[in-house]
Amino acid sequence: MFLMDECKLVILGFGAVGQGFARAVLMKKEFIKEKYGVGLKIVAVADSSSSAICADGLAEEELLKSKAISGKVGSYPDCGSDLTGTDLLDAVDYDILIEATPTNIQTAEPAKSLTLKAFAHGKDVVTSNKGHLALFYKELIEAKEAAGVEFKFEASVGGAMPIINLCQENLASCGISSIKGILNGTTNYILSRMTSEGTSYENTLNEAQHLGIAETDPTQDVEGIDAACKVVILANSVLGIDATYSDVEVRGISNVTLEAIELAKEEGYYVKLIGEVSKNNLKVSPRLVKQNSQFAIDGTLNLATVTTDLADEITVMGKGAGSLETASAMLSDLISIIKNK
Amino acid sequence: MFLMDECKLVILGFGAVGQGFARAVLMKKEFIKEKYGVGLKIVAVADSSSSAICADGLAEEELLKSKAISGKVGSYPDCGSDLTGTDLLDAVDYDILIEATPTNIQTAEPAKSLTLKAFAHGKDVVTSNKGHLALFYKELIEAKEAAGVEFKFEASVGGAMPIINLCQENLASCGISSIKGILNGTTNYILSRMTSEGTSYENTLNEAQHLGIAETDPTQDVEGIDAACKVVILANSVLGIDATYSDVEVRGISNVTLEAIELAKEEGYYVKLIGEVSKNNLKVSPRLVKQNSQFAIDGTLNLATVTTDLADEITVMGKGAGSLETASAMLSDLISIIKNK
Repeated sequence: MFLMDECKLVILGFGAVGQGFARAVLMKKEFIKEKYGVGLKIVAVADSSSSAICADGLAEEELLKSKAISGKVGSYPDCGSDLTGTDLLDAVDYDILIEATPTNIQTAEPAKSLTLKAFAHGKDVVTSNKGHLALFYKELIEAKEAAGVEFKFEASVGGAMPIINLCQENLASCGISSIKGILNGTTNYILSRMTSEGTSYENTLNEAQHLGIAETDPTQDVEGIDAACKVVILANSVLGIDATYSDVEVRGISNVTLEAIELAKEEGYYVKLIGEVSKNNLKVSPRLVKQNSQFAIDGTLNLATVTTDLADEITVMGKGAGSLETASAMLSDLISIIKNK
Repeated sequence: MFLMDECKLVILGFGAVGQGFARAVLMKKEFIKEKYGVGLKIVAVADSSSSAICADGLAEEELLKSKAISGKVGSYPDCGSDLTGTDLLDAVDYDILIEATPTNIQTAEPAKSLTLKAFAHGKDVVTSNKGHLALFYKELIEAKEAAGVEFKFEASVGGAMPIINLCQENLASCGISSIKGILNGTTNYILSRMTSEGTSYENTLNEAQHLGIAETDPTQDVEGIDAACKVVILANSVLGIDATYSDVEVRGISNVTLEAIELAKEEGYYVKLIGEVSKNNLKVSPRLVKQNSQFAIDGTLNLATVTTDLADEITVMGKGAGSLETASAMLSDLISIIKNK
């Protein structure tokens, strides 16, 4: 049981995931108070250029409204501030950092500095970020252990799809030899639509961008970078492989032609962007999967099949992205920290 | 961390699951000792008519050999005994009961008495049994809470497929409104083979019996009784519905004709035995599922789709039966108890 009856949260990063987390807290704080005896209180929220800070707690609705209206969370009435990042962490009294800044696969910043700062403060961290985990997994885990705090990152792989905690806890008795999966929803959407509609890669990407499924700069998704980050995180956290991003062989979907898809289809296969994790194989590439296999899923779903020694194959499937879905994984991580206190 | 560096286990029930558990301990005890600092020691094992008891620990290989040769675990050299059941529990010094007796959906015995006896001793229980959970869930949980012990039963639903702990822990932030799944592998095998081979129910059942997939008396599987137990357990443990076995509407597969299957197939559907769990609907019945849906799985696999508020739909799939597979879920439950001590 949590020693305090109150848990003070700082949310850094207030895009889709950070806002989803605030919504999830709004929806679930009564339930969490009742079930675990702990009241969640958001004491600070920062986006890239502003923040709202209040030791008595910020109202989730007002946070979302301020951000929606002005684009800056710092427009929150009477609580606005210019403090952000590590300066903010140094300035406020908090229990757990909710780290939801954008993934940066070049520098891992600001996620890395924020996380290490929270560890230095002796605080637990829940993150949805992939960059720092994909580039500096070992360093982060060592810092976390030295600080004697918790560091949870279920949301970093597969959004709402349970995979990291599932392997570490639900399958704790099992040796895990490999994970194979569809780890990026955007590319799965594009490939599924090319298959069902017979449209070209370029046209389908345009459609996905129009629907908000692909970003204006789709590079991270379509070139397999996002999936490769997830491969590295799974390699480290589940298989205990000391790997970093550059160890992954990556090929995206931008060269997948409609002809290749239709040829595969005729023979009973689909083309999917598959991430593979095993001792000698860290890879993201377009692969043929049988039309009646579990990998033949459509739309933006993520899926992973875990091969174990005792339990044979275990497969999980769920929404790999989405504001509230990703936030749900972070909130479950937060509850797990509260329960273990 | 476990306060003791040793954990004394009693295994009651030494059929496929109990033996699988002994094999799993043999395979994993070094790993568990190293990772969690706790040595597992099996101090007593009983089947229905005999037992082997040794405070210094029984050798897993010898337990399996004795059972294989004589059919009685009590033939274990120098450690044989006539003590079984609650008498055995009263006689030995143990930490955790591994309860793996056969499911009895009429009386819930001996599982119920054994479990309550262990609680009375202040001991934790890990079970694979469905009968006592399906008939007396509330009573068991109340007794467990009064005793201040742990009671884990992941293996009772879906064998190696993670579902109960997944919903209670990995999805702790989510409200769960329904679970829908294929919860019995034997019937899924029979229906899959009727579909792919065009064979009659009777012939396919015979084939399944010949392969050891269906039992000599297949009633519990083919009449939906096994799946209905799982529906009740999920209703209580995940959805918080105070239900018992008689609350489930049950229809098995013995009246599913080849004609019905072929008619469905022509229209793009398969016939599957589906268990449904929601507030106003506890049901097991043959249902049509779309050929491209996640429910279109073949063979003895189990699958469940969980509908949540925050995380949308989460689907899990895995081996629903099997000696080592089911034991793996029990061993993961055991590890979770050790970690929480």
